[in-house]
Amino acid sequence: MPDLPDRPGDPCDEELAALDAHWRAANYLSAGQIYLLDNPLLTEPLRPEHIKPRLLGHWGTSPGLNLVHTHLNRVIKARDLDALCVWGPGHGGPAVLAGSWLDGSYGETYPDVGRDARGMARLFRQFSFPGGVPSHVAPETPGSVHEGGELGYSLAHAYGAALDNPGLLVACVIGDGEAETGPLAASWHSNKFLDPVHDGAVLPILHLNGYKISNPAVLARLPETELDRLLHGYGHHPLHVGGDDPRQVHRDLARAMDTALDHIAVIQRSARAEGVTDRPSWPVIVLRTPKGWTGPAEVDGTPVEGTWRAHQVPLSGVRDDRGHLRQLEQWLRSYRPGELFDAEGRPTPAVLACVPEGPRRLGANPHANGGLLLRELPLPPLERHAVTVDKPGATQHEPTRVLGDLLEDVMTRTAERRDFRLVGPDETASNRLQAVFRATDKAWQATTLPTDEHLGRHGRVMEVLSEHLCQGWLEGYLLTGRHGFFSCYEAFVHIVDSMVNQHIKWLKVSRTLPWRRPVASLNYLLTSHVWRQDHNGFSHQDPGFVDHVLNKSADVVRVYFPPDANTLLSVADHVLRSRDHVNVVVAGKQPGFDWLDLEQARAHCARGAGIWTWAGTEESGREPDVVLAAAGDVPTQEVLAAASLLRRHLPDLAVRVVNVVDIARLMPSGEHPHGMPDAEFDALFTRDKPVVFAYHGYPWLIHRLAYRRAVHGDLHVRGYKESGSTTTPFDMVVRNDLDRYRLVMDVIDRVPGLAVRAAAVRQTMADARTRHHAWVREHGTDLPEVADWTWDG
Amino acid sequence: MPDLPDRPGDPCDEELAALDAHWRAANYLSAGQIYLLDNPLLTEPLRPEHIKPRLLGHWGTSPGLNLVHTHLNRVIKARDLDALCVWGPGHGGPAVLAGSWLDGSYGETYPDVGRDARGMARLFRQFSFPGGVPSHVAPETPGSVHEGGELGYSLAHAYGAALDNPGLLVACVIGDGEAETGPLAASWHSNKFLDPVHDGAVLPILHLNGYKISNPAVLARLPETELDRLLHGYGHHPLHVGGDDPRQVHRDLARAMDTALDHIAVIQRSARAEGVTDRPSWPVIVLRTPKGWTGPAEVDGTPVEGTWRAHQVPLSGVRDDRGHLRQLEQWLRSYRPGELFDAEGRPTPAVLACVPEGPRRLGANPHANGGLLLRELPLPPLERHAVTVDKPGATQHEPTRVLGDLLEDVMTRTAERRDFRLVGPDETASNRLQAVFRATDKAWQATTLPTDEHLGRHGRVMEVLSEHLCQGWLEGYLLTGRHGFFSCYEAFVHIVDSMVNQHIKWLKVSRTLPWRRPVASLNYLLTSHVWRQDHNGFSHQDPGFVDHVLNKSADVVRVYFPPDANTLLSVADHVLRSRDHVNVVVAGKQPGFDWLDLEQARAHCARGAGIWTWAGTEESGREPDVVLAAAGDVPTQEVLAAASLLRRHLPDLAVRVVNVVDIARLMPSGEHPHGMPDAEFDALFTRDKPVVFAYHGYPWLIHRLAYRRAVHGDLHVRGYKESGSTTTPFDMVVRNDLDRYRLVMDVIDRVPGLAVRAAAVRQTMADARTRHHAWVREHGTDLPEVADWTWDG
Repeated sequence: MPDLPDRPGDPCDEELAALDAHWRAANYLSAGQIYLLDNPLLTEPLRPEHIKPRLLGHWGTSPGLNLVHTHLNRVIKARDLDALCVWGPGHGGPAVLAGSWLDGSYGETYPDVGRDARGMARLFRQFSFPGGVPSHVAPETPGSVHEGGELGYSLAHAYGAALDNPGLLVACVIGDGEAETGPLAASWHSNKFLDPVHDGAVLPILHLNGYKISNPAVLARLPETELDRLLHGYGHHPLHVGGDDPRQVHRDLARAMDTALDHIAVIQRSARAEGVTDRPSWPVIVLRTPKGWTGPAEVDGTPVEGTWRAHQVPLSGVRDDRGHLRQLEQWLRSYRPGELFDAEGRPTPAVLACVPEGPRRLGANPHANGGLLLRELPLPPLERHAVTVDKPGATQHEPTRVLGDLLEDVMTRTAERRDFRLVGPDETASNRLQAVFRATDKAWQATTLPTDEHLGRHGRVMEVLSEHLCQGWLEGYLLTGRHGFFSCYEAFVHIVDSMVNQHIKWLKVSRTLPWRRPVASLNYLLTSHVWRQDHNGFSHQDPGFVDHVLNKSADVVRVYFPPDANTLLSVADHVLRSRDHVNVVVAGKQPGFDWLDLEQARAHCARGAGIWTWAGTEESGREPDVVLAAAGDVPTQEVLAAASLLRRHLPDLAVRVVNVVDIARLMPSGEHPHGMPDAEFDALFTRDKPVVFAYHGYPWLIHRLAYRRAVHGDLHVRGYKESGSTTTPFDMVVRNDLDRYRLVMDVIDRVPGLAVRAAAVRQTMADARTRHHAWVREHGTDLPEVADWTWDG
Repeated sequence: MPDLPDRPGDPCDEELAALDAHWRAANYLSAGQIYLLDNPLLTEPLRPEHIKPRLLGHWGTSPGLNLVHTHLNRVIKARDLDALCVWGPGHGGPAVLAGSWLDGSYGETYPDVGRDARGMARLFRQFSFPGGVPSHVAPETPGSVHEGGELGYSLAHAYGAALDNPGLLVACVIGDGEAETGPLAASWHSNKFLDPVHDGAVLPILHLNGYKISNPAVLARLPETELDRLLHGYGHHPLHVGGDDPRQVHRDLARAMDTALDHIAVIQRSARAEGVTDRPSWPVIVLRTPKGWTGPAEVDGTPVEGTWRAHQVPLSGVRDDRGHLRQLEQWLRSYRPGELFDAEGRPTPAVLACVPEGPRRLGANPHANGGLLLRELPLPPLERHAVTVDKPGATQHEPTRVLGDLLEDVMTRTAERRDFRLVGPDETASNRLQAVFRATDKAWQATTLPTDEHLGRHGRVMEVLSEHLCQGWLEGYLLTGRHGFFSCYEAFVHIVDSMVNQHIKWLKVSRTLPWRRPVASLNYLLTSHVWRQDHNGFSHQDPGFVDHVLNKSADVVRVYFPPDANTLLSVADHVLRSRDHVNVVVAGKQPGFDWLDLEQARAHCARGAGIWTWAGTEESGREPDVVLAAAGDVPTQEVLAAASLLRRHLPDLAVRVVNVVDIARLMPSGEHPHGMPDAEFDALFTRDKPVVFAYHGYPWLIHRLAYRRAVHGDLHVRGYKESGSTTTPFDMVVRNDLDRYRLVMDVIDRVPGLAVRAAAVRQTMADARTRHHAWVREHGTDLPEVADWTWDG
C-alpha cells in the first residue's frame, strides 16, 4: 500500500505512536490472558511454571479486535461520541477484556481486577480458568450486549441497539467467518429499516483476516471489485483499510473512521435538518489484517501468523518445549511491555491517551447495560380492551385481535418515548395485530408505491421475512434497555431456536451479576398455531418450541397458554411488565369462545392453573370421578365440549375441569419457581383419579413435567402427534385424537366401572368420529354439530 | 418495455402462441384448484355449488411459477436437457401441480387424476381438501425435492442436487420473500463451492413479484443498479426480464433462458474441455411480473393484481356474493379454456407443444425421486478400522478420529462414483475427521494461497461457516439419490432445528408414498459436545437437539450414543446403510477409553442397550441391588468409574451396569419401532431396583421416554442441567452432578439400608468433590486421581 499524504484531521506521528502503544498494550494483555499464570509483567525470565496448564482461547481474531478498540477509543474521544461496539468475533474474548481493562471499566466492575499489576495477574489467570471468566465475550464482559460464542447475530444486534437511539453510534465488527452465516448475510439489509431521523447509526466493520478455523473465508477471497459490488448491493459504501505495517494501518484506519463518521453525520443531518428522505448509502469499513497479527510468524518451521493456524493458541507446547517457551517470551516482549506499563503495572499515559472518559468508554457505556436506562412501560388499564363476558362460551373473539388493541394503546403511549417495538416476519396483520397500524407504521426506508399500506420512515413495527432478523433486532433493542414483542407463526419460531438458546443463556448469567440491571423480557406471541393451519398444513404445524425452551434455565423461561381473549390480555400485561425472562405466549388468531371476564381472567392467570367450577360438577360437592384438564385454546374448547357431552350422556359422573395457563405450574416447586407444591397439585388434579389432559403440543411434555406427581400413573395426555395436513380445524383434532369425542371415550375407558356401564355412550362417540370422517371428506367442512357447537352450561 | 427485434433462436409467433397456451392452461388449472369443486371445464355457467366451501391456497405466486414451468419445458425440449426445478415459492402448490398434470406425470403417478375431465375434476377437488393434497409443493408432488412451506432453503437444495450431477441443470425459483431469509441470503455464495467439471449447473430465477403476505419485498424495491451490484457481488451475471404484456414477457424470458443456458454451456465446456479454472460468473434470471398476474385486477374497487392482496385467495366471497362469482367466472374464462382443453378435458396439442417427453418432464425426472438412482454405498469391512481392545478400558482413542479413517475409506471407494459427500461448518479437522483429506479435498472454487491446505476444485468435503448451507446442500444431495454425512458441533446443530423438522416431515410423508423410493438417511455426527467445550464454554453447551428430534416421527428418527471408538464405527456403518431416516449420532472427539472390541461393539449396537457384565457383579449370579445405567461417552466413563468405586468401597453391593446406545430402546415398543417390550426392559433395568442413570443430555428426556416402565418410580437420572462454563472436563461433570462421586452418593442414597451402612463411604465421595473444587480452582486442572484414572476391572 503506498504511503498516503497527510490530510487535515489525520493523526499526527505522536498520536499514531500513542494509538500504537494502546494497541500493543491490548495485544500484550490478550496474549497474556491466554498464556500466563504468573509473571504478568515479565519482570523475570519466563519459566514453565508461569504458563497455564491448559492453553485455551482464540488469539487469531484478537489483534484485529484490539485495533478496532484502539481506534474506536480515538474517535469517541475526539468526537465525544456515545458509542457501543458489538464484537461479532467475540470468541476473541481476550481482546475485549483487554480493552475494558485498559479503559478502567473492568476494574470498576470487578474491583479485584483493577488496573495494576495485581489486577493484571488476576485478569490473566481468570481467563478460561475454572471459576474464572469464559473465553468469549459474555454477559460477564462489561460493555457488551452480545455473546461471542455462536456466530451470526452481531449485525442484527447492532441494528437493534441503534433503533430509537438517535444519538448512538453502534460499531459492529463482523468476522469473515461470521459473514458466511445466513443470519449475518440477511442482516446487511437491515439498513432498509433504519430511520436516520429517530435511529442511531450502525457502522459495520467487516474484518477480513482471511481464515476461519481451518479454511479461508469466502468474502476474504472475493476480488475487491466483487466484494465492493456486494457491499454496494447491500446498500453500503465501502471504505477499505488493510496491510501489515502497523503505522500505515493505524493511519488508514483512523482516516477511514473519520470518513465514515463524517459520512454518517452528513446522512443524519440531511435527514434530520433538511428532511431528505432518500435511503442513504451507509459507510462500511473493510479491514484486512493478518490473522494472529503480531503473533508468531512461524512455529516449528510452519507459517502461523496470517494463516488459519493462528485461530486459537499459536504456540501450544510452551510448558514442555523450551523453544516454544523462548518464542513466547520473544513474542510477548515484542510489545515492549516496559514502555506500556509502569512498575506497578499501570498503563502509561501514552497508552491511555486515546481512552475516553466515564460513560463514553466502550466498557462503561450504559446502553450496554440496558437495565440502567429501562423505563417502566406505560401500560393501559386492561379494562379499556377487555371483552365483555356475561357468561362463559356465549361470545367469540379473535384473541390476538383483542391483543392488537392493547398493543395499539402501548404504541400510542410510547409514541414520544419510542421505546417499544413490535417485530414479526411479515405477519402482524396475518396474526390479527393490525390495530397497531392506527398508532404507528411499519418501518420502511426503501421506495413505496401507492398500493403499499402502513409503511413509514418512522414506523415502530418491524416486518421482514426473516425470523433471524426479528429476533436479532429485538434482542439488541431489549438489551439496550427498551421493550418489545415478537409475533411469530408457531412452527417457524424454531428457526431461531439457537438464537433463543443464547439469549436465555445470556439472561441466566446476567441474573447472577449484580451490576447487570434487569432488562425487559423477550416476549413471544406464537400464533397461527398447529391447530389452525388451514391454508398451509403439515409444514406449518409444530408446537415444539415450548419443549425446546423448557430445557433451559427455569429462572428465565415462562410459557403461557391463555385459553381466550381476556386471559391473553392478562398474560400480555404480565409479560410486558416482567424483567429478564423469555416469555412464550401461545394463542390463536381465529375466532374462539370467551370463557372468562377480565376479573376472572386475572385471577386465573395469577394462579396459573385452576378449577373451572362452572364447567364441571364442583357444585355437587362430590369428589370428582375424573379430571378433564386442558392447556391451550383449542384443547380448552375440546375439553369443554367433552364436559358438555359427559353432562348430557353421563349426568351422574362427577367431572372436574382444570385449565392450565402457566405450564410450569405443573413442575415440581423445586425445579421451577412457578412449580406447584405437591399438596397444591394434588388438590387440583387429585392423587388417584383418572386425569385426561388435552394439551396444545406434544403430549409427552406433560409427562415430563408431571412425572413426580402422585397422580402421574393415572395421567393420560392427548396432544399433537405429528398427524397433520391441510385440512379443517376439527379434522386436525380428530386426526390427533384430541377431539371432544375421543376425550369422552378416554374418560369412559379410564374411570373404573364405566367401560361397561357407558358402552353405548362410547359407541355414540365413536360413531360421531366416523360421521366426521365421512362428512369432512365429502363436504370439506366440519360437521354442523361441531361447527355450530356452543357451550350450554 | 420496448418491443425487441427478433434474434436467431427467438421463438416465432406460433411458438409464442403455444407457450402462452400452456401458460394459460396452467393458470386456469391453478385457479381451478383454489376455487372449483365441480364444473371444471366451465361447461355450464358457474354456480355457487361449484365452489369449494373453504377457499384455500396461494394464488399470488402461481402465475409466475407457471410461466417458469412453461419456459423450462421449452428449453428442456429444445435442448434435450436433464433438468430439475426447485420451487422456492412452493406455497404456490397449484402451479406446480398444474404443470405436472399438464405434462402427464401427475396422472402417471396418480392414475385417478389423469389428463382428462375426470382427472381435472379430481385435481381441483383434492387441492387443500380434507383427505386430498396439501396446499404446498410437498412429497406428494411429483418432480419435487423441496417442500414449499417454510421459506429459505430452495437455493441450497438446488446446489445440493447439482453436486456430482454434471449433466443436470437445476433451475431454482427464489421468491422475493424467501430472498429475505438468512439461509437464502447465504446460499448465493454456494457458487464458490460448485465444480463446473463434476457438478451440474444451478440457474437461479429470482422472481420479484413485489410483495410478501402484506409487505413489499426488500429486493423488489432495490433500484435495478443496486440489485445488479448485489447479484454481481454474489458471483452472478443477471439477466432481467419483466413486464405485464404476456407476449413480450414470453419472448424476453425465452431469450433470457437461452442466453443463460448458452452461458452455462460455455462455462462447462471451458472447465471440462479447456481446463479453465477461473471461477465463472454464473447467470441468474431476474423475473419481474405482477403478483397474481392475470387474476382479478380489482376486487370491490380495491387493486388486487400486482399487490400483496393477491397473495392468497383474491376473490374470497364467491359462494355468497354474486358479483364475486361473476368475476371469478370472467377470470376463469379469460384463459379461454375451450381453446386449451378438448371436450374430454384433454389439453390440446398446442398446449402440449412445449412439453418434453418421458423422464425429461419436470414432473418425471428421476433425480426428483432420488431413490430410483440410489446405489449401495461401498462400505469397507469394519475390521480394517476397528481398534484393538484386549480388555475394557486399557487403551484410549479419539473416537471421531477412528471414524475419520472409515470415512476416508468410503471417500476412496466412491472416488469415481462421486456419490458421497461430507459436510460441516468448518470443523472437519476440528472434529478429528481429517483423514478424509487423504482421499479428497475440500470443495473450493475461489482463489487459493500457499498457506491453504486440502482445498481443491473437485473436492467432496463441503465446509462453510453456515450450518444452514451444510444442511440444505446435504438434503438436496440425498434427495437426489446420493449419500452423505454431516459433522457438527453439538450445540450449533440447533441452528438447523427448523430445517431438520421439515426434512423429517418430508421423509415421514415420503415413506407413505409407494412411488417415492427410499433415499439415504441424513446422518449427523454431533461432536465437540457439551462435556468437552474446553475452549468455549457455556454458549457451546447444548445437548437438546436429541430432545428436539425425538418429538418427530418415530418412523424416521434414530438417536445413537456410541460409548467408544468401535461402537461409533458400528453405528456409523449402520446409519450409512440405512434409508429414509434421520440418524443422530453423538460422540466425542477427545481421547476416551475403548470398552468393547469390534465383535462386542457390533453385538452391543445391534441390541441397542445391554448389560455390561464385566463392569458389574453379574458373575455373582445375584440379583442387582442397584442398576447403574449410562448413555453417552462421558456418562459411560463416569458410570464405570462409579462402578469401580462401589466395587472398592462396597464390595458386597450387587451392581448391574447397563449401557444404552440406541436411546429409542427406552421407549415403549408401541411408540417407536426400536422401543423395548416391557419384559425386555424389566430384564435389563429390573422392575423395582433403584436405577441411577447417567445421561449425556437433559435428564428429563430419560423420564419422558421411560415413564411407563415399572421401574420408573425408582429411576433417578443425572444429566446436563445448564450448569456450564469454560472449565475442565471433570469440573463440567461435577457442576452438573454427573460425576462418579455423585453417582456413588446417589446409589447410597437410593439403595434401601445403605444410607446408614455406607455413611462413611458417602462422606468419602463428598470429600472427593470438595477436594476437586479446591484443586481445580487452584491448579486449573483436574484432580490427578481423576486425570489418571483407568478402569481396574
